[in-house]
Amino acid sequence: MESFVANLLPIVLSASIIGIIVSIWLAWEVLKHPEGNKKVQEVSQAIREGANAYLKRQFKTIAPIVVILTFFLYFTGKTPQLAIGRAGAFLLGSFFSALVGTIGMNIATRANARTATLANKGFGEALSLAFKAGATTGMLTVGLGLLGATLIYWYYGNLATEVLVGFGFGGSLLALFMRVGGGIYTKAADVGADLVGKVEKNIPEDDPRNAAVIADQVGDNVGDCAGMAADLFESYEVTLVAAMILGGATFGLPGVLFPLAVRALGVGTSILGIFSVNAKGKTEIKEGINAILKAFGVSTIVSTIGFFILSDLIASDPRLAIATTTGIVLSGIIFLLTDLATGDHAPVKDIVKQSQTGPATVILSGLVGGFSSTVWQILAIAITIIVSFMIFRGDPTAAAYGVALAGMGMLTTTGLIVSMDSFGPIADNAQGISELSGIKGKSLSILNKLDAIGNTTKATTKGFAIASAVVAAVSLFESYLTDTGLSGINISHPEVFVGFLIGGAIPFLFSSLTIKAVSDSCFAVINEVRRQFKEIPGLMKGTQKPDYARVVDLTTKAALSSLATPALVAIIVPILVGFLLKAEALGGFLAGTILTGQLLAVFMANTGAAWDNAKKMVEEGQMGGKGSDSHKATVVGDTVGDPLKDTSGPAVNPLIKVMNLVAILVAPIVVATNTLSAVHWIIIVFAIILLSYFISQSQKSPTLAKGS
Amino acid sequence: MESFVANLLPIVLSASIIGIIVSIWLAWEVLKHPEGNKKVQEVSQAIREGANAYLKRQFKTIAPIVVILTFFLYFTGKTPQLAIGRAGAFLLGSFFSALVGTIGMNIATRANARTATLANKGFGEALSLAFKAGATTGMLTVGLGLLGATLIYWYYGNLATEVLVGFGFGGSLLALFMRVGGGIYTKAADVGADLVGKVEKNIPEDDPRNAAVIADQVGDNVGDCAGMAADLFESYEVTLVAAMILGGATFGLPGVLFPLAVRALGVGTSILGIFSVNAKGKTEIKEGINAILKAFGVSTIVSTIGFFILSDLIASDPRLAIATTTGIVLSGIIFLLTDLATGDHAPVKDIVKQSQTGPATVILSGLVGGFSSTVWQILAIAITIIVSFMIFRGDPTAAAYGVALAGMGMLTTTGLIVSMDSFGPIADNAQGISELSGIKGKSLSILNKLDAIGNTTKATTKGFAIASAVVAAVSLFESYLTDTGLSGINISHPEVFVGFLIGGAIPFLFSSLTIKAVSDSCFAVINEVRRQFKEIPGLMKGTQKPDYARVVDLTTKAALSSLATPALVAIIVPILVGFLLKAEALGGFLAGTILTGQLLAVFMANTGAAWDNAKKMVEEGQMGGKGSDSHKATVVGDTVGDPLKDTSGPAVNPLIKVMNLVAILVAPIVVATNTLSAVHWIIIVFAIILLSYFISQSQKSPTLAKGS
Repeated sequence: MESFVANLLPIVLSASIIGIIVSIWLAWEVLKHPEGNKKVQEVSQAIREGANAYLKRQFKTIAPIVVILTFFLYFTGKTPQLAIGRAGAFLLGSFFSALVGTIGMNIATRANARTATLANKGFGEALSLAFKAGATTGMLTVGLGLLGATLIYWYYGNLATEVLVGFGFGGSLLALFMRVGGGIYTKAADVGADLVGKVEKNIPEDDPRNAAVIADQVGDNVGDCAGMAADLFESYEVTLVAAMILGGATFGLPGVLFPLAVRALGVGTSILGIFSVNAKGKTEIKEGINAILKAFGVSTIVSTIGFFILSDLIASDPRLAIATTTGIVLSGIIFLLTDLATGDHAPVKDIVKQSQTGPATVILSGLVGGFSSTVWQILAIAITIIVSFMIFRGDPTAAAYGVALAGMGMLTTTGLIVSMDSFGPIADNAQGISELSGIKGKSLSILNKLDAIGNTTKATTKGFAIASAVVAAVSLFESYLTDTGLSGINISHPEVFVGFLIGGAIPFLFSSLTIKAVSDSCFAVINEVRRQFKEIPGLMKGTQKPDYARVVDLTTKAALSSLATPALVAIIVPILVGFLLKAEALGGFLAGTILTGQLLAVFMANTGAAWDNAKKMVEEGQMGGKGSDSHKATVVGDTVGDPLKDTSGPAVNPLIKVMNLVAILVAPIVVATNTLSAVHWIIIVFAIILLSYFISQSQKSPTLAKGS
Repeated sequence: MESFVANLLPIVLSASIIGIIVSIWLAWEVLKHPEGNKKVQEVSQAIREGANAYLKRQFKTIAPIVVILTFFLYFTGKTPQLAIGRAGAFLLGSFFSALVGTIGMNIATRANARTATLANKGFGEALSLAFKAGATTGMLTVGLGLLGATLIYWYYGNLATEVLVGFGFGGSLLALFMRVGGGIYTKAADVGADLVGKVEKNIPEDDPRNAAVIADQVGDNVGDCAGMAADLFESYEVTLVAAMILGGATFGLPGVLFPLAVRALGVGTSILGIFSVNAKGKTEIKEGINAILKAFGVSTIVSTIGFFILSDLIASDPRLAIATTTGIVLSGIIFLLTDLATGDHAPVKDIVKQSQTGPATVILSGLVGGFSSTVWQILAIAITIIVSFMIFRGDPTAAAYGVALAGMGMLTTTGLIVSMDSFGPIADNAQGISELSGIKGKSLSILNKLDAIGNTTKATTKGFAIASAVVAAVSLFESYLTDTGLSGINISHPEVFVGFLIGGAIPFLFSSLTIKAVSDSCFAVINEVRRQFKEIPGLMKGTQKPDYARVVDLTTKAALSSLATPALVAIIVPILVGFLLKAEALGGFLAGTILTGQLLAVFMANTGAAWDNAKKMVEEGQMGGKGSDSHKATVVGDTVGDPLKDTSGPAVNPLIKVMNLVAILVAPIVVATNTLSAVHWIIIVFAIILLSYFISQSQKSPTLAKGS
């Protein structure tokens, strides 16, 4: 037993490297398939080029902010060694997060054409290929996440948590940018393409005459693929960091090692899960989903058994395993609740029924279901917290560790979750490419089914991503206390209450900013697509091609121009609250943010998904089917839901984590600063002016050109 | 000075009686005008009968709950004398709240016909009459509110606050019922009438062929008039109670007397304001609004001067006056912010612009403006709290008193606010009656203008009602601490955090329930109106009359059947949280509720009002005017906004106050109960089952009959 603990770090390190190797092997497996005919290659290349161009420019835009923050992090270090470590870890975290997103996206943009081409071999083959491509990103996420954390821990030992905060912050910040930027991009292109194509011109989705159609495909990759991977990378990282901080404070070394071991276990069970997906001989959507869910089940069961073995070996304390298991149970419940809110059940059926009285009642019934779904999800999280608290009854610090372990448990299967999620845009793209390059018949019907499976896995993992972000944020919130040395956060103190009110308002501000950014970017896309239809004479007849690249370029610019304000809000507001209202109020601020962040994010994600599915149900023939008034009403719901479920909702995840990490980083400075000097005031006033300027700029609206 | 304090109670009592007398005199002034021709009388009588029938049945529905709660309150009393006092005060509070609503509504349903008839005498005359009728309710609200509180204080002395909690709870509970029931009624009728009349049949609003048109008018009275009056009566009451509790704990007798004196002053300045409304010779909407706002200005300035005189006389401490003044300043800022969010400014203009691309972008741009508007409003409240905290720097209890005084300041002009608000439905009804009874020409154009003024005053007072509810709730939250003897509410304790998460979820659940209730009731109305169009042969040609009474009856039943669940949630959930998670967690629960309640309520109210105004701007000719695609798009926004702004949003005000008061009432029992006995568990399980049953019932949907 002793020897196991002594050798634990090498084992964990090996696990992380195995994860990376499996990822590379999977990529190789995917890439050895033929890319397809010239037309397919052309379309696929256009998507890849657009996506890479976007990421490249996004990184360029972010670079100065990362540089400034690296200096800032250097100054938050308590000793020179820690200062360098933290700044370096921040860079590393940013780099890894960006890397996961970029590589994942590159594999996805290569797998799409290959999946489209392989579809003629059969449903099972195409599903396997797309899933393997998704798993490349999945395994890279867990491999790199664990590698970074382990190396830092090995080098810094007891001081590691100080440095790991930098690593987590780097990952979170990049995730925030990628979620916001990618989210704006994907929905601006999607909604823009639909509003001109489907609504004005009455041409089908993914029609090659629509100039925004390539941008739409690019969006799937930069949003769902890169953004999601970076986001989950970060939750994975942040729960680990929080668990290590709280574990060290409560249980000493075993408390730090247990989370690392659980992550190593997770690498193993994720690999097991990925290779358990057996799609051979399957032909139906339901079968495909079941194959994936079965693999997920295998992975969770083995993980749970592993928790108990590890907690016995490392800490001889089954409570650690029980707390970790509550997280696994929570993820099961979240899957269920998400399905109840967005699948073929009462709330969605209600939307379908209400579509008979037009778009207004579609929107209202969506709000009804969405508002209540967020209640049940937060209740599930609350019960999990209470249970992990009761496990360590009587010891509040240990209870906080219990919550962090629940987060660890939730994210044990991250490798598999990311695989499931990345599968979505690949299947979606494959289907889009086949439409654009004229692949028809059996292949197309298979790809349509894959797309449907992808939509289901995307929707379920989205609920999971939010819940895990909140559990991660709660763990960070508890580490904030440990870090600041506060005895508590007394919300009845007026300044704490005020911090709390402001914190609760931030997710609303953030959602407003991101929805606005989508609308504005969308306006730009609509203008350009309309212009092309008007000015390119043979476009509508199909004799001339639209200028796809121009829309891609323009969407990129529009999305990036809206990137700064939400990020500034996430970074500057907690600092301002900390200095103006002090550390305890900053704690109240975090609590407020977590609460409304969770409520709003789930509301937006579920409502959007429910509208989407209601539209699909009508398209499948209910209430008059495609083209009916009911269909038009559900299209309105779907369009409203798009930015909610794919931009604002998901972007709230990194938002609350970034704000918690910023708080942890500035807390020591805030605690040390008893009175504000003139310099402080100058900086504060400057920050407020800067923020106000950016927010007021983002309120301005572009003008819409007349439709043809 | 001493003699002033000694004679203060008689002075306060006289002020309350003067308020009531002025109210009676105003009613008499209104009623002496002629009611109008036979047709007008008929329509007016139908509305009055419908409204009274609704209120009567509503009271019958509520009665058993009030009886049960009276017993419950009796058992929360610490001594037999206090037990009887509290139970009696509860009944009195309920009765007064119901009385204010009923009398206000009765005057309104008599003033509507008189205003319609007087319109031929000119704009100024009609405006004056409608405003006087509104002021009847306004003065009754402040008169009865102050009378109740003063009598209780006179009789119980130092123990009065124990009893006053019962009084406040009675008022709050009735307000909750009246807001929820009235809100559901008014929007079910309104939306139902519009969806069949305007959308399906293409007939104008208030067309006599529409069977729901009388129900729609009834709805204006039971929702906007009775619901609003009861709600503000309660805020008025609750801030007074909270200020007396906290003032007593901090400053002793002067701390209790000052709030009473401020209320007496408010009666005087409200009367002054009401009589300063000079509409003579005015002809335009802008002039009318300015006349009302000028009176409001006079009233506030005199009030502010009075605060300083009173604080000098009673406590020789200008800080009391300063804290009270922050409340007045806050109400000014709230008016401004509401106007910026819902008036002719950027957010509404943006919606108008986005109407070019259809209903989806109308909804999205509304969300953008609504989400951000709630941020600025909560920021204004946060700053007010900080300022009142800084006034009493260094003394947290006094700081809480400061917040309560800010609430007192806000509600000083309640008499005038209620007048402005009740004016709305009267003007609206007058216009409706004239349409229904064939009054045309100059009269109708004047009534249209009055209606527009009423819409403006209603929208601004709505923002005010919410903000004052939140400030009232914050004061109650602080009194909760004083009452429980807790040293603080440490939100980093897991069970407090969990209470806090659950509390934050309640306004979402509540909004979901109330929007659902509107949709369901609306379905019933639509079915009936469609049936009448189909089955009554000469209806569409105007040769036969529809059966108005049937729709009125049916809407009444539908609204009342949805009343129980939201009320049960408000009462049972805090009790459950208290017993299961203890007093400190219940404090966290309250904090969560206040936060999301404020954010959601303002979001819903402002977004709804912005959509409404965007529609009006399009109807006035922008973007193609009436009948254009832009207009249809904004009608969708308006319909979505209707239940948000008139049902769910306003109902959140009494919700958070009721939950705070329930918490204060059960707190001593919770604190005394260390371990839960078997009986406790049985009750808890029973309560959970009851609640689950009601919530699951409310999720079921009625079926919609086919349209003709």
